[in-house]
Amino acid sequence: MPKLILIRHGQSEWNEKNLFTGWVDCKLSDVGRKEAARAGELIKEKGLVADVLYTSKLSRAIQTANIALEAADQLYIPVKRSWRLNERHYGALQGKDKAATLEQYGKEKFQTWRRSFDIPPPTIEDSSEFSQAGDIRYKEIDPAALPKTESLKLVIDRLLPYWQDELSRDLLDDKVVLVVAHGNSLRALVKHLDKISDEEIAGLNIPTGIPLVYELDAELKPTKPAYYLDPEAAEAGAAAVAAQGQKK
Amino acid sequence: MPKLILIRHGQSEWNEKNLFTGWVDCKLSDVGRKEAARAGELIKEKGLVADVLYTSKLSRAIQTANIALEAADQLYIPVKRSWRLNERHYGALQGKDKAATLEQYGKEKFQTWRRSFDIPPPTIEDSSEFSQAGDIRYKEIDPAALPKTESLKLVIDRLLPYWQDELSRDLLDDKVVLVVAHGNSLRALVKHLDKISDEEIAGLNIPTGIPLVYELDAELKPTKPAYYLDPEAAEAGAAAVAAQGQKK
Repeated sequence: MPKLILIRHGQSEWNEKNLFTGWVDCKLSDVGRKEAARAGELIKEKGLVADVLYTSKLSRAIQTANIALEAADQLYIPVKRSWRLNERHYGALQGKDKAATLEQYGKEKFQTWRRSFDIPPPTIEDSSEFSQAGDIRYKEIDPAALPKTESLKLVIDRLLPYWQDELSRDLLDDKVVLVVAHGNSLRALVKHLDKISDEEIAGLNIPTGIPLVYELDAELKPTKPAYYLDPEAAEAGAAAVAAQGQKK
Repeated sequence: MPKLILIRHGQSEWNEKNLFTGWVDCKLSDVGRKEAARAGELIKEKGLVADVLYTSKLSRAIQTANIALEAADQLYIPVKRSWRLNERHYGALQGKDKAATLEQYGKEKFQTWRRSFDIPPPTIEDSSEFSQAGDIRYKEIDPAALPKTESLKLVIDRLLPYWQDELSRDLLDDKVVLVVAHGNSLRALVKHLDKISDEEIAGLNIPTGIPLVYELDAELKPTKPAYYLDPEAAEAGAAAVAAQGQKK
């Protein structure tokens, strides 16, 4: 039966600095590299063998996947990458310090942009140094399709076609599919799989670097609740993500 | 115009130990990791931007590619992997110490297996711990197609169909194609591109970790001699490979 393994990338250099990242392409921090290796060791320890890897187009997810597969001794599997698995585009907030943004715009707007389902932050200008306009990594995609800001709803809208056509094809072929992506693209996927409401998804936090496994039936419905390969670390990690949301 | 960038993987743990490796899946040594990063820095320094990556199914080539693309800031490119880019299968010699093999079989046989164009070493037994029989990384390939020993000629025979159908398609599409592979699969490719004779290819040594660039015309013929991105290091590296062949 098909299996889906989700991994949220480890800490990046910008997470460490408390900046809004979104589509800005920063690398993993040393802590992030260790998280990635641990994710791969968990996969190996539990005897999971991936058939195919999916990543976003962003370095921090790709690095996490590369390090995890090296630790799992599964570097040889085929790889597919898509912008549709990218992190949520944070619009004009990209590159901004989180604390400074909170101060500038006030708590209400700040929380709305972080956690509301369908209200995106202000659009980023093409001239911003943190814009992806003209970025060659997206040169094969209709420029009109590339976001300049996104809510979680917009992430779901651009992710679902990829789920339907690409990920589903491999899963319907009974494969073990590994997806290494981002907090919000994975929340979008989890919302779809677990049929979480627009209201409840705000409370869902996915910890970094801990593989989350879905066992699916022939109609790609979960046959049991998804489980983390290290449940204790996952609980602590999710609490840390939630606390970060409160604090800042 | 299309460009082809070839990189031979850096030193592996088994190169370091002086063992015949072939299809055995050992990892890079620390020296090999540094060579890989240097290869990526050279690509970045020279302003080369790859459109697609091809690797073998072996970890040491994949690690080299991952590290090089990280250093070049080009992790996002699409990836294709094939057993047809694997190192030459060394048959029954796989896993054996080179010095011990020389002593056991004598200099003539040893040199023949290392350098003759079309005489493969003895076939490996499926029961050998160094056989790839049943290796899941090849589970989607006709088992009868998988080698149990190879000469350079046999490497060319299995590599050319992949060149003709896959690499050529991307090159004919005017792409910059990066291939990270092995001493003998790259010698096979260079022999084909530069029309090197069966006799002369024995004298061709490709250094590790230094990108070799081919600029091609619309018929995929080199428009000028291929060049290394660091010619001095390449000369020293090729001499070192040649000396290794003499010494052992």
